[in-house]
Amino acid sequence: MPSYLKLSYKPQKNDIVAIYKVEPSRELGLKEVAQKIAAESSIGTWTKLTTLREDIFNKLSAKVFYVSEKRKIIKISYPIELFEPGNIPQLLSSIAGNVFSMKAVKNLRLEDIQFSEKYIADFPGPNFGIEGVRKVLGIYNRPIIGSIIKPKVGLTPKEQAILAYEVFKNGVDLVKDDENLTSLSFDKFESRVKNVLRLKKRAEKETGSPKLYAFNITSPVDVMLQRAKFVRKNGGRCVMIDIISCGWSAVQYLRNQNLGLILHGHRAGHSAFTRDKRHGISMLVVAKLARLAGIDQLHTGTVVGKMEGGENEVLKIDELLKEDWEGIDKLRENWGKLKAVMPIASGGLHPALVPQLLKILGKDLIINFGGGIHGHPQGSQAGARAVQQAVEAVIKKIPLNNFAREHKELREALDYWRK
Amino acid sequence: MPSYLKLSYKPQKNDIVAIYKVEPSRELGLKEVAQKIAAESSIGTWTKLTTLREDIFNKLSAKVFYVSEKRKIIKISYPIELFEPGNIPQLLSSIAGNVFSMKAVKNLRLEDIQFSEKYIADFPGPNFGIEGVRKVLGIYNRPIIGSIIKPKVGLTPKEQAILAYEVFKNGVDLVKDDENLTSLSFDKFESRVKNVLRLKKRAEKETGSPKLYAFNITSPVDVMLQRAKFVRKNGGRCVMIDIISCGWSAVQYLRNQNLGLILHGHRAGHSAFTRDKRHGISMLVVAKLARLAGIDQLHTGTVVGKMEGGENEVLKIDELLKEDWEGIDKLRENWGKLKAVMPIASGGLHPALVPQLLKILGKDLIINFGGGIHGHPQGSQAGARAVQQAVEAVIKKIPLNNFAREHKELREALDYWRK
Repeated sequence: MPSYLKLSYKPQKNDIVAIYKVEPSRELGLKEVAQKIAAESSIGTWTKLTTLREDIFNKLSAKVFYVSEKRKIIKISYPIELFEPGNIPQLLSSIAGNVFSMKAVKNLRLEDIQFSEKYIADFPGPNFGIEGVRKVLGIYNRPIIGSIIKPKVGLTPKEQAILAYEVFKNGVDLVKDDENLTSLSFDKFESRVKNVLRLKKRAEKETGSPKLYAFNITSPVDVMLQRAKFVRKNGGRCVMIDIISCGWSAVQYLRNQNLGLILHGHRAGHSAFTRDKRHGISMLVVAKLARLAGIDQLHTGTVVGKMEGGENEVLKIDELLKEDWEGIDKLRENWGKLKAVMPIASGGLHPALVPQLLKILGKDLIINFGGGIHGHPQGSQAGARAVQQAVEAVIKKIPLNNFAREHKELREALDYWRK
Repeated sequence: MPSYLKLSYKPQKNDIVAIYKVEPSRELGLKEVAQKIAAESSIGTWTKLTTLREDIFNKLSAKVFYVSEKRKIIKISYPIELFEPGNIPQLLSSIAGNVFSMKAVKNLRLEDIQFSEKYIADFPGPNFGIEGVRKVLGIYNRPIIGSIIKPKVGLTPKEQAILAYEVFKNGVDLVKDDENLTSLSFDKFESRVKNVLRLKKRAEKETGSPKLYAFNITSPVDVMLQRAKFVRKNGGRCVMIDIISCGWSAVQYLRNQNLGLILHGHRAGHSAFTRDKRHGISMLVVAKLARLAGIDQLHTGTVVGKMEGGENEVLKIDELLKEDWEGIDKLRENWGKLKAVMPIASGGLHPALVPQLLKILGKDLIINFGGGIHGHPQGSQAGARAVQQAVEAVIKKIPLNNFAREHKELREALDYWRK
């Protein structure tokens, strides 16, 4: 049987390339482990097979074509015939499946997948994407301002709707449910949809601006679809799905239904496998899969992160920065006809962080505030105005402190969270 | 605002308890971090909220009721009102979601979830379970012998069917697709189903024993359902779903359709988040969720593991053993009316490992052989016989080496894989 190692191989036009960072288990060399990974993720197993003929091997075996001992990086090229068109779970079961369990590796991280045009072409991608979301909102020259309702759960549908209305009225473009709010005994989904959409309509009328509310439909698929349709029937334009806790089979299904709804992709739980830089799967891979599947807006990180404790904390941009930047950048690769995903920065943000955030991540962004609005010392309405003022200052290239002289909500926010 | 720390609290009958192992980030103490975890996974966030009223807090806040500085273990009790009945993705978005991303933790592992009877009662659990699977196969006093078709992919439907037939005829009870085989250009799903089921019927007739074939329906939900129905229509009894790469939303949906098919749960990719004992989610939690969702047969580990390199390798049972043992044990907790899941040991198994395996894991088990059958030096049929002989020897309490004197396929297998 020939080897899975083929350093002279040049990936073919339709091939899919996986890039792994590998720490071999103690007794094995990197090249040896690379071959085992290539075998396990394509057509081989731990022992020689009497049923694996040479013609099958030649046609379908994966090829390790790059090994960097220094960086512990390997690249493996896969013939496209190994993958079912348009089936993300099957892709993951192949190249992000058993390989993580192998005793031959101490740690293994799937850093990137480079898809071929032919593979990409079988996916729908986002229905709206950045341009579509901007068009729905009529906002072209600034980031979208989002707000999560807080507390995460506990309000009634009516309270939730009033809170959404109040921030809509004060500069917020998009409001969303939090990740653990679906349909609870004190806040039933259908009642929330009706209450929220009624007041959203009023806010739109009063402000003259279109607004979005992302209803969290995270649930078993049948329930999810029913809720998505309920949102649409009642005039909603946007639903939120937690892509990791629901899973790719459901995400793809939802997009493939072509409901005409903006899909807001939350990613609760991703850090269980993205956080360790030596093992698991990178957030970049998750983002690329979300784009294939057709998520319109995706949480990709804040760079400035959840500011636990808040006060006196210095921003740490370093590594995270690079990762996020790359993530967003690569989401805009030339992916044929697939639209670009709009990134969402969310988690621990408040007005003082807006200048850095926009400098780092650019304007094609949804910036999402939970505590950073509903924790404002003067309440949620003042919180929304403070955020809107911070964004306005940055767009007008005025330093926040200067702008805050004439804008008291911003000043209060800066005083409160910077102290 | 009162604290999330309440060491005097005794979990109420309906509460759900999560057990985490925590490594706080450098500057924080364990109790402080425990409270942040309790907040983020229930109703709080990183800053004080003007919208979080005291009545909401008292009703819905999570409570840290156990902190072991020595073991770095914390236990958090959640009021059941925080969770939507029958919605696994929502549960995960809550207690296995953002918490993994918090800067306040360096590492965080969800070790266990203790469900209350009330929470469990809203899930269907397995349709068949251990007893149901045994009844379908008519096997009551020994483990089920399974085989994965190898190579993973590359055979035509006809070749696949013939190989299944050959091992069915020689002692194998259950044959399954491998995890990356769904519907590929050279092995279309529908054609495979028809070919395999035709020869399975013949094998059943000729051996007088019922057989099972687990067809891999891992894909976006619409395709998955279509394929499951196709299997049923053509007389199949069992389908395989990769629960991690498909996700819980799809798994629950599939079970809720009540198709009358045995659900074989593969778990490719779980090690991306279960392998690191300091961070992520334990396999025990995955197994419990699979039971709630209604998986009948679940891959839970082999203890003796993928024998990479094969020869001369010593069995390492230690830690893995304990984990698996616990896993299986807990799958048989008294879960009200929910049936027990049949565990599957799979990956790197061959006949020489059967005695240890059965000693450790017991008889209520599917033992699955891929390379351990199709890698037999005399081919797949001899491989199947060797496995069947190994199981027979153990059941009859005869040492393998003695039994092998009269059973040449077993002898060849022992010679080949032990050398």
